[in-house]
Order: sequence, then structure tokens, then C-alpha cells
Amino acid sequence: PVEIKWDAAMAEKAGFKHFMLKEIYEQPQAILNTFRGRLDPETGRVEIPEIILTPEEIKSLNKICILACGTSYHAGLVGKYLFERLVRLPVEVELGSEFRYRDFLIDEKTLVIPISQSGETADTLASLRRAREVGAKAIAICNVLGSTITRESDGTIYTHAGPEIGVASTKAFTSQLTALLLLVLYFGEIRATLSEKERKRIAKALLKVPYQLEKLIEKLHPDIKELSYQYQKKRHFLYLGRNILFPIALEGALKLKEISYIHAEGYAAGEMKHGPIALIDEEMPVVALAPQNHHVYEKMISNIEEVRSRKGDIIALGTEGDETLKRVSPQVLELPSCEWEVSPILYTIPLQLLAYEVAVRRGCDVDQPRNLAKSVTVE
Amino acid sequence: PVEIKWDAAMAEKAGFKHFMLKEIYEQPQAILNTFRGRLDPETGRVEIPEIILTPEEIKSLNKICILACGTSYHAGLVGKYLFERLVRLPVEVELGSEFRYRDFLIDEKTLVIPISQSGETADTLASLRRAREVGAKAIAICNVLGSTITRESDGTIYTHAGPEIGVASTKAFTSQLTALLLLVLYFGEIRATLSEKERKRIAKALLKVPYQLEKLIEKLHPDIKELSYQYQKKRHFLYLGRNILFPIALEGALKLKEISYIHAEGYAAGEMKHGPIALIDEEMPVVALAPQNHHVYEKMISNIEEVRSRKGDIIALGTEGDETLKRVSPQVLELPSCEWEVSPILYTIPLQLLAYEVAVRRGCDVDQPRNLAKSVTVE
Repeated sequence: PVEIKWDAAMAEKAGFKHFMLKEIYEQPQAILNTFRGRLDPETGRVEIPEIILTPEEIKSLNKICILACGTSYHAGLVGKYLFERLVRLPVEVELGSEFRYRDFLIDEKTLVIPISQSGETADTLASLRRAREVGAKAIAICNVLGSTITRESDGTIYTHAGPEIGVASTKAFTSQLTALLLLVLYFGEIRATLSEKERKRIAKALLKVPYQLEKLIEKLHPDIKELSYQYQKKRHFLYLGRNILFPIALEGALKLKEISYIHAEGYAAGEMKHGPIALIDEEMPVVALAPQNHHVYEKMISNIEEVRSRKGDIIALGTEGDETLKRVSPQVLELPSCEWEVSPILYTIPLQLLAYEVAVRRGCDVDQPRNLAKSVTVE
Repeated sequence: PVEIKWDAAMAEKAGFKHFMLKEIYEQPQAILNTFRGRLDPETGRVEIPEIILTPEEIKSLNKICILACGTSYHAGLVGKYLFERLVRLPVEVELGSEFRYRDFLIDEKTLVIPISQSGETADTLASLRRAREVGAKAIAICNVLGSTITRESDGTIYTHAGPEIGVASTKAFTSQLTALLLLVLYFGEIRATLSEKERKRIAKALLKVPYQLEKLIEKLHPDIKELSYQYQKKRHFLYLGRNILFPIALEGALKLKEISYIHAEGYAAGEMKHGPIALIDEEMPVVALAPQNHHVYEKMISNIEEVRSRKGDIIALGTEGDETLKRVSPQVLELPSCEWEVSPILYTIPLQLLAYEVAVRRGCDVDQPRNLAKSVTVE
């Protein structure tokens, strides 16, 4: 008889080889859970009863300061693009470990948004406390109920992503992006910066995301696994994006760093000619994020051409059926067309899968990468 | 008879092997030229007649937005720490290539500071123009007289660093840091955020810099040349700093990238445990900036210990006579004790020399690195 190996951890992994992979696959559900009961599909109106700030308080804000570390910091950077365009409020995004030791300028008209999966990240918590001392309001974005950061804020948008076990954050991140978008819709209505039509457009785009992600994972996972054989021996990667996908380039690079120990770096694509392009050769693959409907699309195409003309090896992520992109890049991962506001969520997924598959090929301990802890509760 | 090889380029290099090395050595003079005639050594008062904004206009500002690319962007990041502490004005630092395509929030109460060696950097210029359209004031920091960016600003602080020929910026960068500090002293007096005593302290520190740099270059260059033999074969470097030296970690990494084609990355030291520490092994040397009198010094010492405990190879830059630092790091480059405000200038120099010597060991074309242009006048 065939010996059946079975243990508790495998059961918890629901048949997946690693928690990280399970959590990547859980993202459609996690995102649905984050917006369910909060977003009205008919009106695009958002209700977040946990936010106890009054409409008057929300109207009187003159600045947002997002506090976070690591992957959550990248969610914060996306938040800046969203809030500045759709709510017209200036946003500073600060690393917890920097903000807490600096001479920041915030007051009771500032809303701080600490973002932390665990709600216990030491530097983010210390930064929140310093901001609270000078009277700033606080709305947290957290995944763990009743955690310290949530207790010390005026309200929390819980991400409802479920427990995240893999050290490299995946579903917590895309749920944070979802929570930020909900907050933008909420503020945009109260501060009257978003028309009903705009709100409905964004709501519609967000409602579609879980279904798009499910198809996208199913379609791209085999292709990415295939790609990973080709890239497993590389020692360097460069990730390029612009505008709202610049933070996603940073996040894609961080995932690869964390679990495969490959030195991957994210860069604003427009900065490439100010330095990193000197590094480009056959040994430095470049991942480029280039959705066709973004206003910086032409600029991304130019950047890809620059890399190609230096014999760089490109993996492009772009829109299904984009023939221009296929012409300039030999390898294209095709994503469904989507609105600018939700594009960070969609474009994150293939980068998670790429990091995962490369790490597996390299024999790395995906769920417990060396030197890293799940929640950084020390300074 | 011995054949004497001599040509025009060598003459211009004044006996140095490369323009870059000549320009590194010119920094004491370049910095002196930048503050000479502007900074009164007795009173610490700054006069910048080129700035045509009235004291009332300067008092009415509510935000500064620094626009720059590449190395100048790192000067801008230092500017944020300086302005926020000493002038109490909030500062955003934006990449030209990102700002010009984003939904920024600035108006006639915003001062934009474009920083560009050439004054022709395309993305910085385009960003300046967009900011001017909405009425923002502009004071440029430039090295080239009459360049486009200076002509489109309300005034320019010229860096007077002299022509910079090496593609990797050195003296233009430290002169930009000097110009920013002058502007801080000027604004700090007008906006009454700096006491006379404080102003004098900072002025005194700046006046000493040219002499400190001269000694520092002379003392450290041989040691760094020696070190470079040990590191010439490395493929990766990590540069760590905190607070006002975090941008200097970024700049040190960029120098190495540009001229030696080694994949060097700068990181805020507090972020290391959120990802990059997974990369640390014998093959990834770490350069750490840890002056003893900075308030984040203890945190830097902890970061160095973390790296050491993962068998990472450390090159620490710190204060002369710091025995703690020597205990935690086998290799220390000692710099003179200096005030926080001028520390970015001093700590830049050994990083330039390290990049230079490593690139020379690797046989790279230091003055003309592959794929890079001196002034990026294309988008």
C-alpha cells in the first residue's frame, strides 16, 4: 500500500505546499472580505462604522501622514497616489523607523494612518504614539483584532484577510490596498472630491477584482512557474514601475529579496537613466509594469526599449492583447484591463507568484526565510 | 630618454588620473566657493541677493517641494531633514519623473526648489514648469550659470563648484548640500525659527568643513584604496544609514552602481529587519554610517551588530576615537566629529572615494560609465 504522509501543518495548508502559496490563492476571498458589508454595489457608497471621526472632523483635516514599515510601507505609498488624486489631501508616507526619530510637523488637523498586518510593529507603534502626543487623529489599517495599534487609534479598518502565516506578506498587503481604497471612497464622498459617477466607476472596478484575481492566478501561475526555471540562478533583478505602480515595483523586489535571497531592487522607471541603467546587462533581468491604459504607458514602453537596447532581459507585465508591448518585450505576462485605482492589486499577484516559484526552485524555506520574523515587534 | 606622454585632457585633469578624482579633491574649494561672500563668519548671517523673494513672501510660505533626479534627489532628501528641523516648514521631495505626471497639491504658498547640476535635467524642468503654472514660487539650486532651470525660477543659489566633467556627480552634490544649508540659515533667520546662537553654531560648523574635508581626504584616501582591493570582486553592497544620513547611504550606493556596475543598494537601517537582512551573508558587504553624536547612534550600533551576527562584512564610518564602534565593527573609517547639519557633507566623501577606487580596481571607465550621460536632457 502507498504510504500516506499527513500531518497537522499540511492540513492547515489545505493541500498547498506552503502557507505563502495558500495565502496567495486566498487573495480573492481576502479582498472580498475586506470590502464586503462596507461597499454598496449600487451606489458606490462606503460605510465604515468603525471610523468614529465625524464628517466635520474629516472635512477639517489638512494632511494625511501614513506610518508603516516593510510591505505595509509600500501599501502606504500607493495610498499617497490614491488620496492625492481622489481626495485632494496631501499625504506624507513615512517609515516608522525614520518618523519616530525625526522632527515631523503634524498637529490635530493631521490624520495619521498606521498600517500594520499585526498591529504590533514596534517602529510603527512608537511613531503612532509620538503623533498622538501632538493631537493627531488616527485611523489604523490592521489585520489582527484588538492589537495594540488598533487600541491606540480612533478607529480601525480591519482587513479581514484571515491569519497570515507566511513571513512574506501577500494577502495582508492586497487587503491593505483594498482598505485604503475604501477609505478614499469614504473621504471622497464626505469631502465632495468624488462625484457619484466617479465613485460608482471605482466601486465597480473594485467589485470585479476578486473574480479577476481568481482567473488571473489560474491563468498565470503555470506560466510563471515555467519562467522560474529560467531565472532561478540569477543573482540580481531590477523592478521598474511608474506612478501608482512604482510602489508595486518596490514590493515585487522586496518579495524576491525576502524569500529567495536574490538581490532585487525596485526603482522608479524614470530614474533608471540617472544610475541603474549602468547595471543593465544579460545578468540583470528587469521586470517592468506597463498597463496600457495608464497615462505613463508610453514612458514605460520607452524604458523597456532602453533596457532592451542594452541587452537587458525583460519580463513585462501588461494588458491582455497589447501588441506594442509584445513587440518590445519577448516575455509578457498578460493581465486583464482594469481601472488605475485597482491596478496595484492586480499587478502585485504575478510578482508574488514569481518570487514564490523562484524561491521554491532555489530550495529556499519559503515560509520561514532566514533572519526574518513575521511581526517585527522589536526596534 | 624617457618618453613623456602628455595630452590636453591630462593637463585639464591637473595630474589626476580621472576627472572624478580631481573633482573629489576639489570639494574643499567648491564648498568654500559656495558659501564665500554669502555667510558672515561673525554673525552666522546669510546674504543671498539672488533670491528676489521678499521677507514677507518667505514668511507666508507653508510648504516646500524639492524637485530633483538622481544624485540631486539625494541632496533634496537631506534638505527635508534640515528644513523640517531648523525652519519648521514641511518638505516634500519628489522625483522629477514622478512629480510631472502626478496629481500634486501645491499653490502660490508653496516654494519649489529644483535642484540640478546642469540646470537642464528634463524631468526636473518639466516638473518646475508644472509647479509654476499653479503659481508656486521657485528658488533653484544649480551649478551652470544661465541654464534653463535658473531662467525659469525666481532666483538661483549657484553652487559655484566649477565645471563638473565626471559623469558621476561629486563636488556638485556636496555643494548642493552647502547651498541648502545656506538657504536654511537664511529662512531660519527670516522666519525666526533659528536663534542667533543656533545660527552661529551651524555657521561655525560649515566654515570648518573645507579644512576638515582636506584633512579627511588626505587621511582616508590611502586606507580606502587599500580596502578597495578586498572588495573589488564583490557583486553586491548594502549601504545603511538613518535620519539625515539615510540619503547619504542612498547616494553612496548610487555612486558605486554608476561607475563600478556593482549592484549596491541603500536602505534606511531601520527597515533592514523588514526584508534586506535576509540577503546578508559573507558575499554582501554592508557599509554603515554611524556618527557618535547623532541621536540614532545607538540604533545604528544595534543594526551593525545584527549584520555581524549574520556573518555580514561591515565597513563602518564613524567618529574618531569611538571605541564602541571599533568593538562591533572590524573595519572603521574614522571621520572628525562634526555637527549634525554638516555630517552629510563629510560622510559623503569616503563613499565617493570607495566607489572610485573599487571602479578603478575593476578597470571601469570611471569618467564615462556605460549607458550614462552627464546631463539627462531627455525624458
